[in-house]
This record gives sequence, C-alpha cells and structure tokens, in this order.
Amino acid sequence: MVPFSYRPVFQTLPIKPNSKLLGYLSRYQTAQFSPVFVRSMSSTQVRTDPFRPAKRVADQRQDVWSIVNEAAAASPVQPIVNMGQGFFGYNPPPFVIQAAKDALDKVECNQYAPTRGNPHLKKAIAAAYSPFFGRELNPDTEVTITTGANEGMLSAFMGFIEQGDEVIVFEPFFDQYISNIEMPGGTIRYVPLHPPKDGATKTSSASEWKIDFAELEAAINPKTRMIVLNRHNPVGKVFSREELERIAALCVKHNIIILSDEVYDRLYYVPFTRIATLSPEVAALTLTVGSAGKNFYATGWRVGYLIGPEHLIKYVAAAHTRICYSSVAPLQAATAVAFEKADGLGFWDESKAEMRAKVQNFCEIFDELGIPYSDPEGGYFVLANMASVKLSEGYPFPPHVANRPRDFKLAWFLIKEVGVAAIPPTEFYTDKNAHIAEDYLRFAVCKNDDVLETAKERLRGLKKYIVQ
Amino acid sequence: MVPFSYRPVFQTLPIKPNSKLLGYLSRYQTAQFSPVFVRSMSSTQVRTDPFRPAKRVADQRQDVWSIVNEAAAASPVQPIVNMGQGFFGYNPPPFVIQAAKDALDKVECNQYAPTRGNPHLKKAIAAAYSPFFGRELNPDTEVTITTGANEGMLSAFMGFIEQGDEVIVFEPFFDQYISNIEMPGGTIRYVPLHPPKDGATKTSSASEWKIDFAELEAAINPKTRMIVLNRHNPVGKVFSREELERIAALCVKHNIIILSDEVYDRLYYVPFTRIATLSPEVAALTLTVGSAGKNFYATGWRVGYLIGPEHLIKYVAAAHTRICYSSVAPLQAATAVAFEKADGLGFWDESKAEMRAKVQNFCEIFDELGIPYSDPEGGYFVLANMASVKLSEGYPFPPHVANRPRDFKLAWFLIKEVGVAAIPPTEFYTDKNAHIAEDYLRFAVCKNDDVLETAKERLRGLKKYIVQ
Repeated sequence: MVPFSYRPVFQTLPIKPNSKLLGYLSRYQTAQFSPVFVRSMSSTQVRTDPFRPAKRVADQRQDVWSIVNEAAAASPVQPIVNMGQGFFGYNPPPFVIQAAKDALDKVECNQYAPTRGNPHLKKAIAAAYSPFFGRELNPDTEVTITTGANEGMLSAFMGFIEQGDEVIVFEPFFDQYISNIEMPGGTIRYVPLHPPKDGATKTSSASEWKIDFAELEAAINPKTRMIVLNRHNPVGKVFSREELERIAALCVKHNIIILSDEVYDRLYYVPFTRIATLSPEVAALTLTVGSAGKNFYATGWRVGYLIGPEHLIKYVAAAHTRICYSSVAPLQAATAVAFEKADGLGFWDESKAEMRAKVQNFCEIFDELGIPYSDPEGGYFVLANMASVKLSEGYPFPPHVANRPRDFKLAWFLIKEVGVAAIPPTEFYTDKNAHIAEDYLRFAVCKNDDVLETAKERLRGLKKYIVQ
Repeated sequence: MVPFSYRPVFQTLPIKPNSKLLGYLSRYQTAQFSPVFVRSMSSTQVRTDPFRPAKRVADQRQDVWSIVNEAAAASPVQPIVNMGQGFFGYNPPPFVIQAAKDALDKVECNQYAPTRGNPHLKKAIAAAYSPFFGRELNPDTEVTITTGANEGMLSAFMGFIEQGDEVIVFEPFFDQYISNIEMPGGTIRYVPLHPPKDGATKTSSASEWKIDFAELEAAINPKTRMIVLNRHNPVGKVFSREELERIAALCVKHNIIILSDEVYDRLYYVPFTRIATLSPEVAALTLTVGSAGKNFYATGWRVGYLIGPEHLIKYVAAAHTRICYSSVAPLQAATAVAFEKADGLGFWDESKAEMRAKVQNFCEIFDELGIPYSDPEGGYFVLANMASVKLSEGYPFPPHVANRPRDFKLAWFLIKEVGVAAIPPTEFYTDKNAHIAEDYLRFAVCKNDDVLETAKERLRGLKKYIVQ
C-alpha cells in the first residue's frame, strides 16, 4: 500500500534487463511497478543469477532458535517460559548501568573508540586479569577489545586461518564457532565429549563428560592450526587442570594455537584453571576470550576481549579492525568502570553465589521428577536427560521437527504441552555424533527467581509422560 | 613488574617445545620465566611457524591514522587541532542521548537483540525511509541492522562474493572497502574519479570530480558481481541523477549488485538521488547502506542498516549473523526513538544547515589564502588543493613519510609547522592512481565552531609557504 503522500520515484530508464532479472521482476514485483517497465523488458544476455548468494550463507536450514520461536508462538500455553536462549532475565547491576549513562554524557565516549579498544577499558581488563595470570598484563599489547566474544573469536580465526587450515572443536560446540571457522576457509575436525554412560538414570557432575584423548590426538595432523576450548555451554563442564595439561601438551608438541573461550570465567563452582597459566610455552600459544556481556548480565552490549601474547593479539586486532573497525564506544567506557568497581562491591562473589543458587533451585524439579541431569561446574546451563519422557504415539510434529533427532521433538513437546522452552543440544553436534545427546535438553537458568518457579511448576506437568 | 601478591601460576609441564616456539620464547620472553623452562627446552619437530598470521592481516604497513597520530604527538604545537578523522567534535542531540539512557533501564534492551535487528528500530527505519523510496518498505524483509555501516558492507560482500568474484570501486575509496572485499576472496577493479583539470588554481564544486564512463565499462567483465557507490568521502561529491542512471544502466545490463554507501544521506547540499529509486530493475539489484552514527553524531555507536529487496537483504542478514551474531541492543533501541522523533523536532534540517555553515565558515581560510578546494555537495569533508604550498628544501620527513606521495609530506608538514591535522587522500588510492590526489589534503569540518576558528587561525600560518 503506497500512501498518496509518497511521490512516485521511478521513471523509465533506457535499460533492457536480462532475463534473470526480468524473471525476478515478473514473479515478485510486477504488481508494484508501472506497466511501462514490464512491457519494455526483453531478454538480452544471461550471465548469471544476479541474486545468487555466496556458499557461506546459502544454507538456510531452519535453525534451532527459529524452531523454538515457532513452537512458542503456536503453544496453547501463553506466554511460554523461555529457558532456551542464554540471555539474562534481569538487568546489569546499577553501578554498571550508571557507568553507561555517565559515558553517554561524554563527547569522546560517543565517537569512534580506537580500533584496538578504549585505553581505559584495556587498562581495567589488564588490571582485573593480571592476578589470574600471575604477572602484569600489558594493556597495550596483550589485550584487545572486540564486538562481543563472538566477533572476537571470528577475529582470531580471520587472523590465523587460511583456506584448508584445520581447527579442532569439541562437540557439543557453540554453534557460532562453525561459521566463524568456515568464513576464513578453515576446516573443522570434531572431537566429541562423551557423556556419562549412566546419564539416563543418574544425575552426575558435568565433569563426567569426558574427552577421549586418543580421539583428540587422532584429530591432529599437519594442517591443524588451532583448537577451540569451549567452556560451559551447553555442557556446564569446567576442564580440569589435568585435562588442560594433556591438551596443552599436545598443542605445544604440534604448534597449535589455543583459543580458550572463557566467557563464563566468573561463574564456576569448582576449581578453575586458565590454560594460559600452565606454562610459558602454553601462554605463547594461547588466546583467552572474555565477555563483558556474560560478566555483567548484558549480552546485548557486544563488548568482548581477548588476552594473549603480543605476537597473537596484534593479528586478532588487525582482523577486528577489518571486520568492525571499532567496537561500541560508550559501552566500552562503561565496562571499564564496571571492571574497576566490581571487586570492591563484592559483585563477583555475589554473582557466582546467586547463579549457583539458581542452578540448585531450578534442579529441584528434576530431582522431584526423577529426571537425571548434568550438574554444571560453571555457567548457567543445565542439561537434563529426558530419556524417561515418553512422547505420545503419533504426536503431530511438523515435518522439519519430525526429521530431526529426538531432542528436537522433546523441545517441541515441552513447549506445546507444558509451555517451557529449552534448547535441543544436538543442534551443537554434527549429524554423525548427534545421537550422543538426543535425550538431553538444555535449560538456561539465568532468569528471575519467579520465572524459575513458574518453570518448575509447569515442568511438574511432565509427570504423566514419565515412564521410569 | 610482578607484584608480590601475584601467586606464581606456572608449573613445569612434561612438554618439549619445538624449535619455533623455543625461538620465540628465548628471543622475547626468557627474562619473564623460570630458568627451569628455558633449560628444559629442546628442539623436537618443526611443522610451521605457529604464529604465522593469515595473509589477509599480514600487511602491517603503517596506516595513515597512525602516521597522523605519530606526527601529532611529535608536533611542537600542542594540542594539535585534529581535522583528520571524521568523528564529531560534539555530542548527539539531547533527545538521542536521553533515548539511550531510557533504553539502559529496560531489561530487554540490555540483552541480545534479534540477529536481524530490534523490530522497533527496523520499523522506525522503514517508516523514515519509505517516503524517499516512494513506497512502503517492509521492516521485516527489506531492512536489516548491522554493527555500523562498516560491518554492514562487510556482510553484503560476505553474502555475495566468492573467491575470484570482482567488485568495482571508485577511487578515492573509503579504505575499509578494500579489506572488506578481500576477506571473502573478492578482487577489486578500481575506477578513478578524475578531479577538475584546474583544481590546482580554481575552487570548484565537488561535482567536477568525474567518472570516465569508458573506464567504468572497461572494468566490467563476466566476473563482476558488485559495484560500490562511495558517497561524500573523501570527495564531497553527490552523484548526479544522470551519472546514477548511466551507472545503473550498466549494472542492469550486466547483472551487477549495487552497494550504495549512503551513510551521509541526511547531509547533502544539492539534489540527492537514491539509485534504488531509479527503476524497479535497479531497485531489485540495490542495497542501500545507512548509518545511525553519521546521522546522529555518534560514530562510536556502531549501529548501521541496509535497505534492499528481500532476496538480497536475507543473505546480508545471514552473513551479519555469522559475523557479529547481533548488534548493540540498547543503542539500537535508542536509534529507533531517534528516528521517530527527528523529523518532528526539525533535527534533519537543522543538522544539514549547521554542517553546511561549518563548511562555509571553515573554507573562508582557503579563500583568504588563495588555496583552491572542492566545495562539497554533501557530507563534511573538504579537499583542499595545496599545490601552491612549497615544502622547505631538505625538510626532515621520517623515511616512512618521505617515501609516500606528496600529500603525506603535506600532512606531516601541516601538523608540525602549524598544528593542524588533515588526512592525505592518496591513502584512498591505489599506487597507480595516487598521483591524481597528491596535492590534496582532506579536512573534516564536523567539529565545534571554536575548533574551526582555531584551525583557521593556525592555517593562516601557511601564508609564508605559499608560492602563487
């Protein structure tokens, strides 16, 4: 509908469109345009489909998020309780919000930040992390700021991966890793984490998801340039010091850069080792990734950072400059203040205690229902094993859910029957290994306590479907 | 310096580093680490240099910004007046800042925005641009939000360019285009804009920078997939309707996607045609790029947007999701309100009038000195022709300036002698065509009026170097 107030902007051009373009125009747009055009079109030459996308974006398989949203929209239970995506159900703490408001009043905080990041923020991060690294980090050479941890990891891959290089990724992976590695031309070697054998019958620590080191070593070859250490998502596993030492030994032996995704580095409930601190040789190969969004309950802020030796950081920064030029300035300034104040306000301890309490509170419902789960060692995701939930015979799953593994059906079923959204973790597996996780669902507990209570109450409705 | 309070984090691992890593450690870091390590190192195998960057980031030639900063730091005139980079010397208007503060108080505005953008913002942009496009834009399918216009253009290239595809770029270009095209494997065909023949002696409109259409057509071949229309930077040229019609005719004939960079679309001082409005065939091939940062004086906000037909926008959005996942949430929410309120508050007219006045005010000094310039038709950059400025014999330029074209020397000289920073525009040319602009310097006038006055006063000091 074109309101009358819009002036007609098109005029006839002496242009003969080719047949592909003509095809598009006649199929989709004829109705909108002057008949003069349509009449004047004739085929001249066909070089190619002008609208053909690049291969890297051509796959438009419906992703897990849109399937969950679709189910949520169609659920008879409204509104659904969304425990799917890992965003916080509450605001950053007041001292962080105030810092952002203060930044907005400063001229320099609204204009381009330096491409490598606001110097104040780099200094605050170096100061906050130096105690963990056991030495003073140089804010100018060993820290760089990115547009969220996601673009930070892409920058790392863009900085080091050439066509045909290989990157090792553990399954289940964070789904963005895959496209981020493939964009610069990398090939992924997958190494699965193996869940506890009795995961369908017994709750156990997320530490029971294990690396098969023979599988890991077999994935290494002369093309291997990087390995990604995925933390806490979807499995709430914190790699043990011993596991990290074995991984590190392989990386040093084979010259493999370690990209350690530590975005949940303030949320751990067991001893937490940073792989970069194992030895100087390991430090020389390690990029550590952090996230202000995860640390300060602000996933929409898009402020991430990488810490590592200058000879790695400088190329991450160079790639970041080419990708985003610079990152959001006022929220970088706010994050600097947030890091400076957090310790003194006891924020980190409080944050960890609160999240641990949410995990324990929420998991009571699984204990009550006899649904086993992986008790997370860090982060805010719980993997519950729903092997005992019987899906009704002939349940009307739409075709694009019916042809996915059982966890997609479980997710659909939960949303429709009890109104709680969770994420099917086989989305984070290759097809080959998807069977490993097809009985699990991932719940994000970073929500307000009243939301968790509603979710528990609704999940109680699963009882009638459980066959022990 | 490691404070005593830091615990020693390293321990000895049973790892034999290879010789490359050993080389790194002994060259750069031995001093920092325990001698136990250094003694235990021995050569085992050498597969590759573990720190070798990808080619796309390996070029670390000192860029124009760092040369300007280096000169600025060394100038005897302090502080220098920075008219180099195009950031605003003043804050966004109060209604925009207030909108950002309001957004920070809302939980949903601090968490992940949808990957394609905040629906409120897409709606506000569709509403703001529908009158220009002469029809109602669909906010869900024809608008997508990106992390600044820069990442928006990268997303467009990532969405359509495969290895070996070609993209036509006019010189002088905005420097980020180049790496953004090369990242997905594109090859650039350069077509120069030709300055007025009498540019060294006579001030004229920026419209006098002309396309040679024979050169443009010669740059097209079967590999050509896209063309970039660079607006207003560094030449303040607004392509005329006739020029756009000729470009569009070539693109329709050859199936070339048009990426029209219209980030200065609210700052034009002559009639402004949007290429997407020329005809339905052209619209079907055109992606229009906009920038909240440029529109609302907030270059640090990183909120950009692309408008175009669904069959193009959906792949831009897919690429953006793979690059940044989503864009900064609170500032998207603020930008939505900014677009909704701007018209009613008369902001656009005021913005344009103010910027035009700054251009005219600043250029008085060039009139006074007899330095000719290109009078911009849009944007906030002025190209001044300094052919008449005589650089002193034997002036001590550092080697990395001495071996660049004359405009780099002019920029260095201005900073050191009169304390005003401007940008040498040959940075935006290939070596082959750099000679075209080697007498020009680019001045950004988006600064407070007192800053412009200081700049004028200082530039008066050039008088003694001018040979008419």
